[in-house]
Amino acid sequence: MRATVVVRPKDGILDPQGQAVESSLRHLGFAVDSARVGRVVELDLDTEDAGDARAQLERMCEQLLANPLIESYEIALQADA
Amino acid sequence: MRATVVVRPKDGILDPQGQAVESSLRHLGFAVDSARVGRVVELDLDTEDAGDARAQLERMCEQLLANPLIESYEIALQADA
Repeated sequence: MRATVVVRPKDGILDPQGQAVESSLRHLGFAVDSARVGRVVELDLDTEDAGDARAQLERMCEQLLANPLIESYEIALQADA
Repeated sequence: MRATVVVRPKDGILDPQGQAVESSLRHLGFAVDSARVGRVVELDLDTEDAGDARAQLERMCEQLLANPLIESYEIALQADA
């Protein structure tokens, strides 16, 4: 089963990468009000059970993929093509 | 206008960050077949014109947000809430 996890800095948390992107885009002449940068992790899991997959992904996020103190994450499952 | 840009390593291109995630997840006991890591950039643009926004975002991707040689990007526009 394929899954996509999006990890973003929480609102109100400093996002230095986003600030760098915002400032660089302005220097390049783009009219940008704000920029936030996160990660997207695309995974192929061995399980075909959606409930099991989601439970595993939650644990992956808590243990490795995200820092729950400063980042939020969003899990989306795709059926195999 | 809000926009989301997802930047991913192209298929067949080495993804060391994805390999590190895959190997770490396996060490943690997760049954993972593959992992790819990309970036997600969320932007607030000054323009409210979708065509203009998309054209600007294409140029941002070519100039700063992605490396078109090794990365592909996907642009999604959201109307302001």
